[in-house]
Amino acid sequence: MVSFASDYIAGAHPKVLQRLVETNHENLSGYGTDEYCASAARKIKKACGLGDDADVFFISGGTQTNQVVISTMLKDYEGVICADTGHINAHEAGAIEYFGVKALPLKGTAGKITAVAVDEYCRTFYGDDNHEHMVFPGMVYISLPTEYGTIYSKKELTDLYEVCHKHDMALFIDGARLAYGLQSKSSDLTLKDVAALCDVFYIGGTKCGALCGEAVVFTKGNCPKHFVNLIKKRGALLAKGRLMGVQFDALFTDGLYEEIGRYAIDMAERLKKIFADKGYRFFLDSPTNQQFVILDNSKLKELEKKVSFGFWEKYSDTETVVRFATSWSTTEEDLKFLESLL
Amino acid sequence: MVSFASDYIAGAHPKVLQRLVETNHENLSGYGTDEYCASAARKIKKACGLGDDADVFFISGGTQTNQVVISTMLKDYEGVICADTGHINAHEAGAIEYFGVKALPLKGTAGKITAVAVDEYCRTFYGDDNHEHMVFPGMVYISLPTEYGTIYSKKELTDLYEVCHKHDMALFIDGARLAYGLQSKSSDLTLKDVAALCDVFYIGGTKCGALCGEAVVFTKGNCPKHFVNLIKKRGALLAKGRLMGVQFDALFTDGLYEEIGRYAIDMAERLKKIFADKGYRFFLDSPTNQQFVILDNSKLKELEKKVSFGFWEKYSDTETVVRFATSWSTTEEDLKFLESLL
Amino acid sequence: MVSFASDYIAGAHPKVLQRLVETNHENLSGYGTDEYCASAARKIKKACGLGDDADVFFISGGTQTNQVVISTMLKDYEGVICADTGHINAHEAGAIEYFGVKALPLKGTAGKITAVAVDEYCRTFYGDDNHEHMVFPGMVYISLPTEYGTIYSKKELTDLYEVCHKHDMALFIDGARLAYGLQSKSSDLTLKDVAALCDVFYIGGTKCGALCGEAVVFTKGNCPKHFVNLIKKRGALLAKGRLMGVQFDALFTDGLYEEIGRYAIDMAERLKKIFADKGYRFFLDSPTNQQFVILDNSKLKELEKKVSFGFWEKYSDTETVVRFATSWSTTEEDLKFLESLL
Amino acid sequence: MVSFASDYIAGAHPKVLQRLVETNHENLSGYGTDEYCASAARKIKKACGLGDDADVFFISGGTQTNQVVISTMLKDYEGVICADTGHINAHEAGAIEYFGVKALPLKGTAGKITAVAVDEYCRTFYGDDNHEHMVFPGMVYISLPTEYGTIYSKKELTDLYEVCHKHDMALFIDGARLAYGLQSKSSDLTLKDVAALCDVFYIGGTKCGALCGEAVVFTKGNCPKHFVNLIKKRGALLAKGRLMGVQFDALFTDGLYEEIGRYAIDMAERLKKIFADKGYRFFLDSPTNQQFVILDNSKLKELEKKVSFGFWEKYSDTETVVRFATSWSTTEEDLKFLESLL
Repeated sequence: MVSFASDYIAGAHPKVLQRLVETNHENLSGYGTDEYCASAARKIKKACGLGDDADVFFISGGTQTNQVVISTMLKDYEGVICADTGHINAHEAGAIEYFGVKALPLKGTAGKITAVAVDEYCRTFYGDDNHEHMVFPGMVYISLPTEYGTIYSKKELTDLYEVCHKHDMALFIDGARLAYGLQSKSSDLTLKDVAALCDVFYIGGTKCGALCGEAVVFTKGNCPKHFVNLIKKRGALLAKGRLMGVQFDALFTDGLYEEIGRYAIDMAERLKKIFADKGYRFFLDSPTNQQFVILDNSKLKELEKKVSFGFWEKYSDTETVVRFATSWSTTEEDLKFLESLL
Repeated sequence: MVSFASDYIAGAHPKVLQRLVETNHENLSGYGTDEYCASAARKIKKACGLGDDADVFFISGGTQTNQVVISTMLKDYEGVICADTGHINAHEAGAIEYFGVKALPLKGTAGKITAVAVDEYCRTFYGDDNHEHMVFPGMVYISLPTEYGTIYSKKELTDLYEVCHKHDMALFIDGARLAYGLQSKSSDLTLKDVAALCDVFYIGGTKCGALCGEAVVFTKGNCPKHFVNLIKKRGALLAKGRLMGVQFDALFTDGLYEEIGRYAIDMAERLKKIFADKGYRFFLDSPTNQQFVILDNSKLKELEKKVSFGFWEKYSDTETVVRFATSWSTTEEDLKFLESLL
Repeated sequence: MVSFASDYIAGAHPKVLQRLVETNHENLSGYGTDEYCASAARKIKKACGLGDDADVFFISGGTQTNQVVISTMLKDYEGVICADTGHINAHEAGAIEYFGVKALPLKGTAGKITAVAVDEYCRTFYGDDNHEHMVFPGMVYISLPTEYGTIYSKKELTDLYEVCHKHDMALFIDGARLAYGLQSKSSDLTLKDVAALCDVFYIGGTKCGALCGEAVVFTKGNCPKHFVNLIKKRGALLAKGRLMGVQFDALFTDGLYEEIGRYAIDMAERLKKIFADKGYRFFLDSPTNQQFVILDNSKLKELEKKVSFGFWEKYSDTETVVRFATSWSTTEEDLKFLESLL
Repeated sequence: MVSFASDYIAGAHPKVLQRLVETNHENLSGYGTDEYCASAARKIKKACGLGDDADVFFISGGTQTNQVVISTMLKDYEGVICADTGHINAHEAGAIEYFGVKALPLKGTAGKITAVAVDEYCRTFYGDDNHEHMVFPGMVYISLPTEYGTIYSKKELTDLYEVCHKHDMALFIDGARLAYGLQSKSSDLTLKDVAALCDVFYIGGTKCGALCGEAVVFTKGNCPKHFVNLIKKRGALLAKGRLMGVQFDALFTDGLYEEIGRYAIDMAERLKKIFADKGYRFFLDSPTNQQFVILDNSKLKELEKKVSFGFWEKYSDTETVVRFATSWSTTEEDLKFLESLL
């Protein structure tokens, strides 16, 4: 069935798959010590404009990456500030709490939080005489793009980064869909900007063309000691680390990662126009590959027989917000078919 | 370089890879809800002789599978009995303890533990007036084959299963290399036997022909409630569950899993004969794909320039135990080359 | 210094201390198996109108009690609904998260949450197609009185209890200050009502006349199996359980617990009147032993040289909310002295 | 009933209790910030010969103290070496594992481990090519006296301390019964020696004259940052910290702690002589307040009707090892009565 259900409905981008096929018979060492992981790490560091004190590791999925990064970077007395709608707070089944960490949610706007709100939270915290009995804010987590497809401007990110350092916190960017955030026509951020404006982030593979895998980037010599051991302890160390090394090596060869992002954004813009031209309303103005459309429930029922999409939330008694996502695998035919149904 | 370093040096078995390529463009739902996961589960249940009350789930790696199974099946007051050399006790960086579970190690023999030793442990435990202040034995964990390549006979497994039930414990079999255990010429166990003689086990993919993935099998309606949520909470739920579904579907089509095991065992037998014929001694008599050879340190230094293998442990001041592993990717040429070096 | 800083500024109520002295030389068994723990449990069950299927245990402090109860009663996939200002969410340093549990905070009003809000949360949760990836609501936690001194009416508690059962959740009442809640002149709840209208609660000792200790009451045969082991595992099992057994035995002899509550409420009412008569404003209308007064910062600075009280929160640029608490140890002289300063 | 069941059968030493009574009505601040905690800490540091960079905290019980110290001092990739019979490994219901830490047990002799065994463990560990996948040894835990009443000599302790530092590990001494270890006639250790020869230790109160409480001593500016927050997070922060402050202040006034130890040791020596004179055999030669006697099962059954003691372990089909413990509360009459029964 034609599907806009998510950006992980298909396998790997053909060029990524091709590299897996080409390297399949090579004998490689395990646990991320192979040459493809090394090569991918080098290419990522270069693309990020980072030097030798940066470190790159590959972890198979996003929730796990969040767990590993947050639980290894925070100090024992710290928790993590995030938007109330942030993935770690809302849709990871309590994964960070399972690792002992408290989420400190702030009310977000279209999935975003502001430097001002973070600053106020911290000032209130340190101004409270009882704060020694409370969870210290030790990190700010943002997703870029957010769960609502929205993005941060360079100014907003710079402000967040500064407020983090003002209060001795790390800034962690969940880049599960980073390819789409960077290629958004509304974005003034480059990959180098992102790398320069945070302490740690990850470049999503699963939702941006890989079969699985996220590349964690510690930007400034701040990788936790014995990090491979910590990954193993958390169950997240794949024996065939090559699976991710080869894929990320392909994604960061000849601009494939950018190409994937650009293509999906282009498809999303066209999808957006199709809906807009037909008079549909949007739940919010998303500049990335996830588009949130308000559908009459009757129209929804009719559509879902023909195409796949995601249910987001109830909008009113007669309307529902649904999500249409594009990716490298979205085709012109998919869009035409969708248009024919509206 | 020619390598016997492990059974995870190459990518996927060609037939497995081929299925990934063939299905790459299909639009599938996420998180293990796709048709390939369902098909693989059906085929596995059938191969195991299990009925509708059995459940099959796919998890990306072995340590993680052990963590997930053990932490979800044990009650709060229980720990897990295992061999002191068992993977969960020795080589998983404290992964189950990270999830709050205490390992209760018994001294093993060539990696194995006996029903008699388990029984004695439990009788001593319950005979101790202070046992309410101790960790209750709630599960027995064995690896099959063990970390030393040894296997359990049907009689031994039956005895273990019975003693588990006598003391109200689950029996959990770590089958990371199950394909080799079942195809060993010394084995009198079938996959159906294994499924019938334990409460939960996993069929290893990573070390038996897949890029990644282990198939957890709950044999008797004993799958923990909301298990997908529990997997997610532990960071172990892949968005593209298809990656494992497709691979296991291939492994359980036309007897591929057996074929992979049989081939590697055949190669291991030939490798064993090569060493024996040249007068080398073995650390122990392994009937599976891992062979532990005692090498003079001078010979070791010479060999390691030409082929890869694993270091196991110091044997004496002048000798070392090393491991040679075979797999689907071991070739006749590999063996001939090795023979030429001995 | 005269102190209204909290209800735990003094040692034990004289009658409680006397019993510790009288029983000091008796040889008793450890870990809560002594006759005083048994006697206290019997008296508490009787006072609660509970039968033989109820269970009572003693734990040394409130945060620990919350940790133990919540982490043992919740299922693996569940978290706990609470007010955003609830002690477990705001002032326990992430203690329940340390035990792997996610707090699910609802916006409260003067520290309270409503059955309607809980119901809406649950209906939204189960109405969400993605809820298998979220933390299930498994318990509702309320404090009675709340952290703001407010209380629930019988009707409100009944509604909460019903909504809990509608959604298969336990209702847990943190009764750190229960003595004051029950003796409040605005309360229509008895101890029997509380016991009948929840699944588990605790009767606070530390803040109501004991040196330490909270009595956890499982109201209906729902005590987790091997609960003593679970307490021990969480570090919360005192060797000299008698310390708490003797104190609670005293608190539940001849109505001492009620007497302590009544006396403190009487003192609080008088304190309230003193402030009101002098024209001070209250942050909210608390009917229990904690009174929240709005002070000019200049007055605050003057007062704090003479009496102790608690800082609560900033009210405006020139005013602060402070807390005055009463207890069994508050004297007429204390009140007169305070009055003389206003 | 006359009891030798343990050293925690009675309440507090009369002088300790007296101080609780005397200070009961004083208004003090909470959570260990009161003057008695401060005074007790000063006296303890002085008695230990420690300077201003040492830190002292009070925690209510031994298992909890072990949990808190071990989980806060270890790095994420580390576990704790201990004797297989060590309290943390054998009799704490998996408490440290619940906090995510793996115990690394060594076979002990009469409850003790040696520097040589620790060194060998570490050398084997670091010599293993796979050690990055294993739990790093980060601390050595010993109990002094051990669970079998045995003690370490100054030479043995010095050797352990040196081997710890050789391998970058902390040495942690569980001094639940330290008073008895120091006063043993076989001991050549002083409290100052103990403090000088470890990184952290605790001075047991519960089993040495207090109602509850253990004094944790960080010997050298190595107290974890925000330690009070970490105690709170682990549920171990008592509101009325005074309860422990006052007791330890009394224990470290006028040599009471030494007096309690000396008296109990004197009683133990006499008890030992009574058994020896009557021809009873000992399970091992304990120089402290716990004596392990081998009893015929028929004698055991007869005795247990008249006096209380502890069951330790089966010795043979007809004999059992039982424990007789002395303390400050053991009387001459108790010993005479026991003698009359033998």
